[in-house]
Amino acid sequence: MTYCIGLKIAEGLIFLSDTRTNAGIDNISRYRKMFTWEVEDDRAIALVAAGNLSITQGVMTRLDEAIHDAKKTGAETILSARSMYRVAEIVGATMQDIQDRHREDLEAQGTPADATLILGGQRRGGQHRLFMVYPAGNFIEASVDTPFFQIGEHKYGKPILDRVIVDETPMRGALKAAMVSMDSTMRSNLSVGMPLDLSVIRTDTYRFAVQRRIEAEDADYAEISHGWAQALRDALLSLPDVKLD
Amino acid sequence: MTYCIGLKIAEGLIFLSDTRTNAGIDNISRYRKMFTWEVEDDRAIALVAAGNLSITQGVMTRLDEAIHDAKKTGAETILSARSMYRVAEIVGATMQDIQDRHREDLEAQGTPADATLILGGQRRGGQHRLFMVYPAGNFIEASVDTPFFQIGEHKYGKPILDRVIVDETPMRGALKAAMVSMDSTMRSNLSVGMPLDLSVIRTDTYRFAVQRRIEAEDADYAEISHGWAQALRDALLSLPDVKLD
Repeated sequence: MTYCIGLKIAEGLIFLSDTRTNAGIDNISRYRKMFTWEVEDDRAIALVAAGNLSITQGVMTRLDEAIHDAKKTGAETILSARSMYRVAEIVGATMQDIQDRHREDLEAQGTPADATLILGGQRRGGQHRLFMVYPAGNFIEASVDTPFFQIGEHKYGKPILDRVIVDETPMRGALKAAMVSMDSTMRSNLSVGMPLDLSVIRTDTYRFAVQRRIEAEDADYAEISHGWAQALRDALLSLPDVKLD
Repeated sequence: MTYCIGLKIAEGLIFLSDTRTNAGIDNISRYRKMFTWEVEDDRAIALVAAGNLSITQGVMTRLDEAIHDAKKTGAETILSARSMYRVAEIVGATMQDIQDRHREDLEAQGTPADATLILGGQRRGGQHRLFMVYPAGNFIEASVDTPFFQIGEHKYGKPILDRVIVDETPMRGALKAAMVSMDSTMRSNLSVGMPLDLSVIRTDTYRFAVQRRIEAEDADYAEISHGWAQALRDALLSLPDVKLD
């Protein structure tokens, strides 16, 4: 499995993904599920992926090949598209292509071809935007009412996001909530695992404020993980008792 | 869906269940999913159920009919069985019977016949014990290593239990954790809903310390739910910041 989060708050965009993939419980590998593109002073784009790894790798390869080819042909790519909406359309169309090529054969073998992406970023002159791209290539956009998307093993880490994340949540609070959401998921589900990849784009900067791999022994992460366990116990103690009569 | 919890700590047993059932999202009903039996000074038994409602209702009806008939025949029932393990065997055998009768027809119509139960209690002379009974009638027992079972929509509410519940957790803390686990699930999943049923058996009392229905407007519950939202936000603030460089 996989767990990836994309958050859109007024201050910017946060992407957090794990790196564990598995085909059966005894075939576990580590793959990057976060992909980023930056054009200085023009745009920053991040994408996290869940689902069939051959499909999502295919999508990434196609996107990068298109960028490479465009140097000669000048064709439109996610680095030249005129809006983030157009970027989502290009990514969606690429997904659709790869799905069309492989779905029938995969499903004939009983392997699900599903893959889902969270895509976000900002280009100069536009807003920062966040999209969820479905296997069929269609997509929806995050809004003030729904400021985050999750893909993969999303249930364990949803309650903390549901309660904390709104458009006005400060970046530092949203980052901690994302970390706690991931930490809770890893504790409750073996198919999600370290290391993590974290990317942050601050609004109207068109660059990554952070692109960081967080290893299992990361001191920051350990502090948050242990701090949260203690804070949860303290929070429980602070609640009123349930009356037993 | 459904969400039910059974906790076994040194101080006793806690059972908490919601009451929402649905066949499709526009056919929602309210059914009690918690069933209790008490024989004064001898035993207290509680059972919570998830899955196909006709199956779980069938199991409950059979158990109660057997108790009724035993007044004449003196046959063994869950109220006369010599151990909680034997009670689990009787419940498991009843589940197996009902499954055998209905599974084929249900599955031919595309309806899953699965049902899962959490069963617990204590009889005089024995320990307090907690079991999970599977659709096939087999069962496992909670232990010091695994002090709780969940059935139904279990993922949202698992992280808080994973972090807090151990054998030595005091009753008041375990009760709050169970409430928070249920509250988190109801906030993140519409198929789990109020009112709730709560039962508590304290170790070596052979009776229910609490059997309580908690309605949506319950003041205790509101205090815990709102208190938890605030406590979570405070807990997040207390964590160290994620460094952005």
